[in-house]
Amino acid sequence: MSTVVVGSVALDTIKTHDRSVDNVLGGSASYFSYSASFFTDVKLVAVVGQDFPKEYYDLLKSKKVDLEGLSLLKGKTFRWVGSYEGDMNTALTHETHLNVFEDFDPFIPVSYRKCSVLFLANIDPELQMMVLDEIGKPQFVACDTMNMWISTKNKELKSLLKKVDLFIVNDQEAKQLTICDGTIEAMHKLLEMGPRYLVVKKGEHGTILASQTELAVYPAYPLKTVVDPTGAGDSFAGGMIGWIDKSGAYDFTTMKEAVLFGTVMASFAIEDFSLNALTKLDKEDIMARYNRYCDMITPERV
Amino acid sequence: MSTVVVGSVALDTIKTHDRSVDNVLGGSASYFSYSASFFTDVKLVAVVGQDFPKEYYDLLKSKKVDLEGLSLLKGKTFRWVGSYEGDMNTALTHETHLNVFEDFDPFIPVSYRKCSVLFLANIDPELQMMVLDEIGKPQFVACDTMNMWISTKNKELKSLLKKVDLFIVNDQEAKQLTICDGTIEAMHKLLEMGPRYLVVKKGEHGTILASQTELAVYPAYPLKTVVDPTGAGDSFAGGMIGWIDKSGAYDFTTMKEAVLFGTVMASFAIEDFSLNALTKLDKEDIMARYNRYCDMITPERV
Repeated sequence: MSTVVVGSVALDTIKTHDRSVDNVLGGSASYFSYSASFFTDVKLVAVVGQDFPKEYYDLLKSKKVDLEGLSLLKGKTFRWVGSYEGDMNTALTHETHLNVFEDFDPFIPVSYRKCSVLFLANIDPELQMMVLDEIGKPQFVACDTMNMWISTKNKELKSLLKKVDLFIVNDQEAKQLTICDGTIEAMHKLLEMGPRYLVVKKGEHGTILASQTELAVYPAYPLKTVVDPTGAGDSFAGGMIGWIDKSGAYDFTTMKEAVLFGTVMASFAIEDFSLNALTKLDKEDIMARYNRYCDMITPERV
Repeated sequence: MSTVVVGSVALDTIKTHDRSVDNVLGGSASYFSYSASFFTDVKLVAVVGQDFPKEYYDLLKSKKVDLEGLSLLKGKTFRWVGSYEGDMNTALTHETHLNVFEDFDPFIPVSYRKCSVLFLANIDPELQMMVLDEIGKPQFVACDTMNMWISTKNKELKSLLKKVDLFIVNDQEAKQLTICDGTIEAMHKLLEMGPRYLVVKKGEHGTILASQTELAVYPAYPLKTVVDPTGAGDSFAGGMIGWIDKSGAYDFTTMKEAVLFGTVMASFAIEDFSLNALTKLDKEDIMARYNRYCDMITPERV
């Protein structure tokens, strides 16, 4: 089993109310890969520039992430400068420098085509579709998106949704894409667009998982202190997809387990900047928090 | 066993994006009483004016709510005029006419003093304290509040919190009262103020229950359509407190069950205006939704 992810690798500069970091490892594919690597073999497709630090290659390699699909181009790596204020629920973007990411042309090594699972992180839906076509027939395909593509590539995104097994989206995007005020109403409409499973992420308010006939609702893992919410969604996707690939099963029960692992991985990610908190984890830490989380959310039957 | 509630009885005029109602039964004590009456005997303390319709007396009496403590004063009943827009998460207040509620002087019948549980709904903390002193020694005391009292009666509210077993509050109020940005951090500080148990309500995002040593987190019951969110919090409190009184137990497990029943009762309340949805319920409907809700939120252990 192995999971291919296509997405961004970035260098982030982030400011919160009391701390800041410069040019740390970020990007959807970085968070996803590291998070998923606790569960399955990960093969990464992304692009970096000549300034991409060796230590970040080494960090991903230390988790056996396959970097054959990580293209190195002349120029600078994608950079994002942002900040968080107040309750930290919303990122403020100060600068975006796409750099080599602007002309991203995903390179899929031949060895990647045998993957069991494909995760199309948030990139242009046309590129997502291109990668999907090129990869062939993975057993399970999931994708993410963002508000910009819903506005600018609506038709292409909807074409893609017909071909994925799982669509992971946040609640604002779900409402935007379906032109609905309510999350549950939006979910019904999204499932009609094609995906077999749907996960709506509500940040600190948790997630809702649905199929045409089933629904599961989970709160976020409660944390007293959030250091940096960057990468929460991609760490969630990494935990979720990693668990699905490890399980090799694609039923609703597996999806429920996977959402819980996704929630746990996201809760670790936001306890520090960049991938710092993830790099301190081992499988026992993950299982301990998984069990603690289950204890906190298990209802009392009467 | 019996539960005394002190709060407001009001006539509400409410507008949503596609419907409206005039002068329908509302107020914290109305929603609470009706909701709690499915679980325990309820004794109400509130005030109405001469214009209070006989049908609303009859409605409460039909659920055996004891109205000996419902004072009838010369003048008009408390009136609230409000509306909801967009995602319906926030009520817009257009008019508030306190009328007879302005000089509310709670009358506690002698027969109320043997109650096992006391719920102090959202009224002036000085009145809440007065009622608590007068009632004597119930086995369990819970209270609610609102942003206005946190601003104007901060000291009085904090004195009250030292004397209650359970404080039910929404997340904005929790943050306001503790001057915190984060919900979990705010909860730690609130528990230090005195209450043994704390419930933070997050509207459509669910609830967090905590004691000094335990934490339980539950999402809201997912509804496709919300007709009118008015009374959700008081219907929640009614289900929660009603279950606690019925159980006659005050341990954390009972609190968890009670939060789930509160969530279920709130989910019914918002499916129609006023108490309309609650009046159509029987105990089987409540248990059926309780079990369905447990199914949707139960995690998969691995």
